Amino acid sequence: MSGKSIADLSPGNPVEGRFLVARKELRQGGRAGVYLDLTLCDSTGRVPAKVWEKAAEVTEWFQQGDVVAVSGMAETYRGELQLRLETVRAVPPEEASPSEFLPRSQKDLGALEKRLAEVVKTIGDPHLRELATSFFRDAAFRRSFFTAPGAKALHHAYIGGLAEHTCEVVELCLAVTAVFPQLDRDLLLAAAILHDIGKMEELSWETAFDYTDVGQLVGHIVLGEQRVREAADRLEGFPEETKLLLSHMLLSHHGTKEFGSPVVPMTAEAIALHHAEDLDAKVNLFLTNIAGARAQGRRWTERHYLLGRALYVGSEEAGADAAD
Amino acid sequence: MSGKSIADLSPGNPVEGRFLVARKELRQGGRAGVYLDLTLCDSTGRVPAKVWEKAAEVTEWFQQGDVVAVSGMAETYRGELQLRLETVRAVPPEEASPSEFLPRSQKDLGALEKRLAEVVKTIGDPHLRELATSFFRDAAFRRSFFTAPGAKALHHAYIGGLAEHTCEVVELCLAVTAVFPQLDRDLLLAAAILHDIGKMEELSWETAFDYTDVGQLVGHIVLGEQRVREAADRLEGFPEETKLLLSHMLLSHHGTKEFGSPVVPMTAEAIALHHAEDLDAKVNLFLTNIAGARAQGRRWTERHYLLGRALYVGSEEAGADAAD
Amino acid sequence: MSGKSIADLSPGNPVEGRFLVARKELRQGGRAGVYLDLTLCDSTGRVPAKVWEKAAEVTEWFQQGDVVAVSGMAETYRGELQLRLETVRAVPPEEASPSEFLPRSQKDLGALEKRLAEVVKTIGDPHLRELATSFFRDAAFRRSFFTAPGAKALHHAYIGGLAEHTCEVVELCLAVTAVFPQLDRDLLLAAAILHDIGKMEELSWETAFDYTDVGQLVGHIVLGEQRVREAADRLEGFPEETKLLLSHMLLSHHGTKEFGSPVVPMTAEAIALHHAEDLDAKVNLFLTNIAGARAQGRRWTERHYLLGRALYVGSEEAGADAAD
Amino acid sequence: MSGKSIADLSPGNPVEGRFLVARKELRQGGRAGVYLDLTLCDSTGRVPAKVWEKAAEVTEWFQQGDVVAVSGMAETYRGELQLRLETVRAVPPEEASPSEFLPRSQKDLGALEKRLAEVVKTIGDPHLRELATSFFRDAAFRRSFFTAPGAKALHHAYIGGLAEHTCEVVELCLAVTAVFPQLDRDLLLAAAILHDIGKMEELSWETAFDYTDVGQLVGHIVLGEQRVREAADRLEGFPEETKLLLSHMLLSHHGTKEFGSPVVPMTAEAIALHHAEDLDAKVNLFLTNIAGARAQGRRWTERHYLLGRALYVGSEEAGADAAD
Amino acid sequence: MSGKSIADLSPGNPVEGRFLVARKELRQGGRAGVYLDLTLCDSTGRVPAKVWEKAAEVTEWFQQGDVVAVSGMAETYRGELQLRLETVRAVPPEEASPSEFLPRSQKDLGALEKRLAEVVKTIGDPHLRELATSFFRDAAFRRSFFTAPGAKALHHAYIGGLAEHTCEVVELCLAVTAVFPQLDRDLLLAAAILHDIGKMEELSWETAFDYTDVGQLVGHIVLGEQRVREAADRLEGFPEETKLLLSHMLLSHHGTKEFGSPVVPMTAEAIALHHAEDLDAKVNLFLTNIAGARAQGRRWTERHYLLGRALYVGSEEAGADAAD
Amino acid sequence: MSGKSIADLSPGNPVEGRFLVARKELRQGGRAGVYLDLTLCDSTGRVPAKVWEKAAEVTEWFQQGDVVAVSGMAETYRGELQLRLETVRAVPPEEASPSEFLPRSQKDLGALEKRLAEVVKTIGDPHLRELATSFFRDAAFRRSFFTAPGAKALHHAYIGGLAEHTCEVVELCLAVTAVFPQLDRDLLLAAAILHDIGKMEELSWETAFDYTDVGQLVGHIVLGEQRVREAADRLEGFPEETKLLLSHMLLSHHGTKEFGSPVVPMTAEAIALHHAEDLDAKVNLFLTNIAGARAQGRRWTERHYLLGRALYVGSEEAGADAAD
Repeated sequence: MSGKSIADLSPGNPVEGRFLVARKELRQGGRAGVYLDLTLCDSTGRVPAKVWEKAAEVTEWFQQGDVVAVSGMAETYRGELQLRLETVRAVPPEEASPSEFLPRSQKDLGALEKRLAEVVKTIGDPHLRELATSFFRDAAFRRSFFTAPGAKALHHAYIGGLAEHTCEVVELCLAVTAVFPQLDRDLLLAAAILHDIGKMEELSWETAFDYTDVGQLVGHIVLGEQRVREAADRLEGFPEETKLLLSHMLLSHHGTKEFGSPVVPMTAEAIALHHAEDLDAKVNLFLTNIAGARAQGRRWTERHYLLGRALYVGSEEAGADAAD
Repeated sequence: MSGKSIADLSPGNPVEGRFLVARKELRQGGRAGVYLDLTLCDSTGRVPAKVWEKAAEVTEWFQQGDVVAVSGMAETYRGELQLRLETVRAVPPEEASPSEFLPRSQKDLGALEKRLAEVVKTIGDPHLRELATSFFRDAAFRRSFFTAPGAKALHHAYIGGLAEHTCEVVELCLAVTAVFPQLDRDLLLAAAILHDIGKMEELSWETAFDYTDVGQLVGHIVLGEQRVREAADRLEGFPEETKLLLSHMLLSHHGTKEFGSPVVPMTAEAIALHHAEDLDAKVNLFLTNIAGARAQGRRWTERHYLLGRALYVGSEEAGADAAD
Repeated sequence: MSGKSIADLSPGNPVEGRFLVARKELRQGGRAGVYLDLTLCDSTGRVPAKVWEKAAEVTEWFQQGDVVAVSGMAETYRGELQLRLETVRAVPPEEASPSEFLPRSQKDLGALEKRLAEVVKTIGDPHLRELATSFFRDAAFRRSFFTAPGAKALHHAYIGGLAEHTCEVVELCLAVTAVFPQLDRDLLLAAAILHDIGKMEELSWETAFDYTDVGQLVGHIVLGEQRVREAADRLEGFPEETKLLLSHMLLSHHGTKEFGSPVVPMTAEAIALHHAEDLDAKVNLFLTNIAGARAQGRRWTERHYLLGRALYVGSEEAGADAAD
Repeated sequence: MSGKSIADLSPGNPVEGRFLVARKELRQGGRAGVYLDLTLCDSTGRVPAKVWEKAAEVTEWFQQGDVVAVSGMAETYRGELQLRLETVRAVPPEEASPSEFLPRSQKDLGALEKRLAEVVKTIGDPHLRELATSFFRDAAFRRSFFTAPGAKALHHAYIGGLAEHTCEVVELCLAVTAVFPQLDRDLLLAAAILHDIGKMEELSWETAFDYTDVGQLVGHIVLGEQRVREAADRLEGFPEETKLLLSHMLLSHHGTKEFGSPVVPMTAEAIALHHAEDLDAKVNLFLTNIAGARAQGRRWTERHYLLGRALYVGSEEAGADAAD
Repeated sequence: MSGKSIADLSPGNPVEGRFLVARKELRQGGRAGVYLDLTLCDSTGRVPAKVWEKAAEVTEWFQQGDVVAVSGMAETYRGELQLRLETVRAVPPEEASPSEFLPRSQKDLGALEKRLAEVVKTIGDPHLRELATSFFRDAAFRRSFFTAPGAKALHHAYIGGLAEHTCEVVELCLAVTAVFPQLDRDLLLAAAILHDIGKMEELSWETAFDYTDVGQLVGHIVLGEQRVREAADRLEGFPEETKLLLSHMLLSHHGTKEFGSPVVPMTAEAIALHHAEDLDAKVNLFLTNIAGARAQGRRWTERHYLLGRALYVGSEEAGADAAD
Repeated sequence: MSGKSIADLSPGNPVEGRFLVARKELRQGGRAGVYLDLTLCDSTGRVPAKVWEKAAEVTEWFQQGDVVAVSGMAETYRGELQLRLETVRAVPPEEASPSEFLPRSQKDLGALEKRLAEVVKTIGDPHLRELATSFFRDAAFRRSFFTAPGAKALHHAYIGGLAEHTCEVVELCLAVTAVFPQLDRDLLLAAAILHDIGKMEELSWETAFDYTDVGQLVGHIVLGEQRVREAADRLEGFPEETKLLLSHMLLSHHGTKEFGSPVVPMTAEAIALHHAEDLDAKVNLFLTNIAGARAQGRRWTERHYLLGRALYVGSEEAGADAAD
């Protein structure tokens, strides 16, 4: 199956390849009375697709979340790429893992892992260093940590996003400790590394990015604090005050109760972690949205439902300059 | 020390007895340049007191939070009772426990304990019944649960307040399950009984009602959920779904994120628990404030800092009728 | 008129029966250029329906809010039941009352009426007892009170919903007075019984649940207080203080100004009524939404526009247990 | 009673006259152990006063809210005028009405009454004209309407303030109807004239400006609407739609639910009334505060507790110019 | 070009004329697979239109924002007027200016200009009079000021809307200074005249009403203050204090920070301007929405997305009376 | 004048030295009837002081904001240092500049200036580099920039605070550009360097930290944007788009309208600047408050009026560790 990836498709050409079905709806319309309206994705992007023939029959052959092998034509519809599919066939799970078709971090995840390991080694406090190490020593934890997305839909919403976000927050915290040497560097780094590990239980990313039941009913803030406290409890001689400070930092890292932290930051390290985390999430969100709109030749993004505003993309030259 | 309790003092009479020093301030004023301004309390109430003579010396002899033996006169100042103390002497801790001098529930705590035990027995689900039982089987837990206050300052802020509040919420939940038989009665009762046990770690009540460090930095919502989940983990065969629902109910029982719940209620039992708890806390708060103002002969309470309003006490007769 | 009710329809079978037209839209599409897109309802539920033939003509024959006699086929469309209608005919108003086709409380309304009458008799204060009695003595009031819905769309939004909601609030208030004997039981019960009678003027429920003009421009809170105060004015010797307390309770029963109460609760009875009412509305809302989603085999409800969250339905077995 | 009024007192001179006791507190301090700390007022302003001698005895002779005859000296304390009283004596109520000593509108109330009567005559709709007339025909209503303050403490908080505020709102509404001839002029004028008559029951102004019980528990918005609707009900043939529109305007005139309107404005006349009323209240509040600070030679007012800001007074010359 | 204007079209008649394309979308549907869905407008209103034949070809011939010459039929669709177009042809820009087809104030703009000039002459302060004059002396400024809309979509959203809104605010401010002679009339009038001139840079109105880049990124509040301050800087001897007061009034005229004012009003003239401006915008918004719904025979408007409510139109007769 | 600085005073010793009078109040009390209650400060801190003898006379000799030479005794009062002054004498302005007695950054301001100059040189874009350079080339600007405080009372509220805050934000932005190379580094750095220069006009710091009139009425956000835009206008060939982006960043740097930004961030560089600035301000605020409380031996700070919470100081050892 040597098909092209979505980023490489161009209108007017035949398409043949494997994609993940991100959305599937049978709609009324077309000559045949009904048609299939799909969104396909692979790790490079998403594209709408239509099945006009025998849709009522074809819809029985696969589900949302399946990988399918398709053939058809790439067309333009209202200025955007769209596929007209002639054949669609479900690929058995043993042949193709849906998660390979999800959007994916463009960072070298191996390099991120190495960098995190380096930073862990610089933690001077032996308890905190051992705490961080104890997580990454576990292969299952590592596998999950370096594939999990950073969020369902906002910032870092791609495979590897959690690790990418964590590394960025760690780098920012290193800069913060350089500016404010009064901060407890070891505590801040340990908390930065572990602050979002609750996301590994909050989210699922097998066939799509979604919340788990425990993610909705308990949430990553409480889940993450539980994992860290349990791990610290297992380490001999881990100071109670340090446990308390870590729990506080994990619980308060969203900064305000409105955003789901049961307590607000009350230490300098907690407020630093919150702001570093927030800065990273927001800049990632802005850059991702602006890049997407620039790729479509727009000067402004769509109004973002959560930010409540459109973002300025600017003229192409200005953008090009900025990226130099 | 057969002194009168504060509720029984009357102006114009000598005073002799033991009280807890709830507040102590050395102030500039009086003939001697400085005087001591105290608030004394016992389980029946609070009274202001002054030491006019040798205050600079007397202030060295005891601390806020100590029990003291005093003698002096009860006077009236601006229409309210006030003590003029002639002698003040610290009572050694082995002779008097400060906690005996804190305000105290007027309910029979033994009867509350019995009532709770009865309700626990009616829980049909064996896992939930054993969970609740496992807490109350522990004598240290019982001692703490039946002395802890329900809050630092708002509702049920007295020794035994946690137990009183819990029993009231349980009675209300019983009524709610009668109205809505679709609710999972066992789940709602178990959660009602355990919903505030985090307060036992959040608050301290040795010499005054205050927050502990972990109470401020982690809070009773997360602490309570931890204790319940850990206890459920220790019970063999406790269903995972039930654990999840219990965790959700404890975490969401404040109803909104603004009030410190990291997640909002998403099950019918969780919303029922939240509202039963809120109803009980608010009615207790209103009744306590109105009773206090009525005792002072007022027609309106002072504006309450948290409610943002004064409460209506009404005419004495109306009050008398209401209490019949 | 021997047609099946909506709850009993199944796909693949012919349909013949009478339904209320809850929504009617002429849309562009289908072979004929236009088709009719309907929602039909009866007291057991709602179902979408299409008229594909001669829609431009058929649409002239009836209005939204009419009862129609139809024949056609029950089909499945995207996993949900849908009717394909062949004939549609308006039923004259004298033959069928639209209100019989509206959703309807599943409680025995006669039993509710009896229960309310019993509770009224237990009101010790003769003025308050006579006030409550004076409303229910009036047959027109009774007819309206026992058919009105409890709200347009949220909780208790069905024929008989006002009476059902009122009875539930009364039961909860009885439990509250058991827990807090200091409350004025007579006042609380009288107010609970009458608290929402303004809904009888705020809402209309002839052919659908909707707001009346006076309902929008004045609202049930002010309307209800007016009816109660006017009734009390007509009773000889009704104490002014009691009138004032009742007016206050009716006006403040939404709890905060944001939710439309011109004054906030300032008495213990007012805060108790508000919380009992809110508890009842919210638990009803949660249970109704969860039951609807469970009937569709879902594990989570749709995100609720007003609650701003999805509700957890859980696995079928858990649900089954809970309902035992 | 040939004493000077407060506005005419100057430091260093003896004082003799009658004033209203707006505040009375017995405080600890001074040579004698206690002293009396008073605020005296008359219709021209307020001044602090102290009784240093025999305060414990003197305090028994009069109450807050009494008119007293005093003699003593005017002094300066921290840059502000203060009285040192030597004699204080209660004036019997039959000799002096406290209300004459309250702050008072500087407008000619007779002229306001005449102007309102003129405007009423220009109302073309006979029902609305008769409605407005029916109130002012009643001498008791007139007496109350032309003495009531406009608020307890914010804008127009002086005897005659309600009439002054009403006239100003009426003038502004006349301008609004000139700009927007589509508005129903008769409806807007009638509502403007009657919009705040609930204040006559909400406030008391015998010895001070304060809320009545019904003012707190029901509020002037609902009270005013009741009076207007009852009056319209008494007029034969008053159109129901007009009653509804008037009720809506009175209920919604605070503009938002947060500010105590149970419904928000939904007609053009209602929104116009709200904004005219708000404009008048706010400009009066700003001008009053700025004038007070300018009289004290300040360049900025104190931070206003409700506005959450200080107001700019500016340099004296600028102020002088502005007043030209 | 002798076509009818949109306000004069009636169903069942042929249409021939020139309109501006306000919206253009190629949709799937109809016999030919795709059709064109358009909104056309001229200065008298808007009308939906469809092109059923050769839509894929026709769509290439013109853009949104073009003026087109069309022929076809006026039909009724779901009770509203709709055009079925047979020919559509772009009109070259030199033949037709899109701005002539935008909605347009129904006021006589020449009269507004004359009225503003008169008011400017009554400004007594020579600096302020010269400041206002200096703007209107500039022909380019005048041309822009008397064509700009007052907003993109809310109030006064039509050609000439800025001038109309400004004149209305000026009239209201004249009334305010009559009620409050303490206000600095010259300052208030000058600020009222210039308060929204930033809109001339914030909005574009060549082919539609939209924000400019600088309008989004800087906003009319800051832009207007810059223009006024720069103009004052160019005038010799303009008092610094007056400049400061003017800057403050322009910056604070939205009243609160939430609505985009970087500072809140701190002078009486600033609060007066804010409220006069707000009153005018809101009454215009209400009247426009109500008039639109009345023209469609509705008794309530649609729920307004920004006001969060529907507005009451009432019965036709009531409406007719109101307009007399 | 070889007196000790405030940080070096200890109780029980005579005091002689020069201090700035930060607060002066004549109060009633003490043997003489009145006494002077002062707060004195120098660059190392603040201390309360009393004048018990001849206070009515002494108060005439100096004003708040004056530098005074004093002699007296250092005492302890309620556990805190307090001065009892015997002589107080105003020091003529030519002998002592008040600003030398204000709190002062503990950073080396020369080093900050050097560091900023280095960073300016690394700006690649010649227009932006020249813009930044043009400000610092001006000696008066430099003098003001390197003495101004960063705020009146919250973060960096000391002489040199503006420069210290700016440098910290610049360092953080350098880290942000390392993490996000897509950002326009030159734009972000230039804006970071200039973002708060409006504070130089907003605040005064001659004898105390306070707002200027223009600071209150216009504010540093608008003032800073004006200075930067004017400077860019003076530079030949400065690109319009860059001006627009800079204006946007300065105006939006408070992040939300509620905090005084007239527009919210709509570019990635703007959101990065906002968050870097906020992080720096908050961490400084936390560290300052915690250090102050630790110096007093407290385990928690007082509740902070703006943060709405107390901050955790912890045990001394933990603190000591953190500072290693």
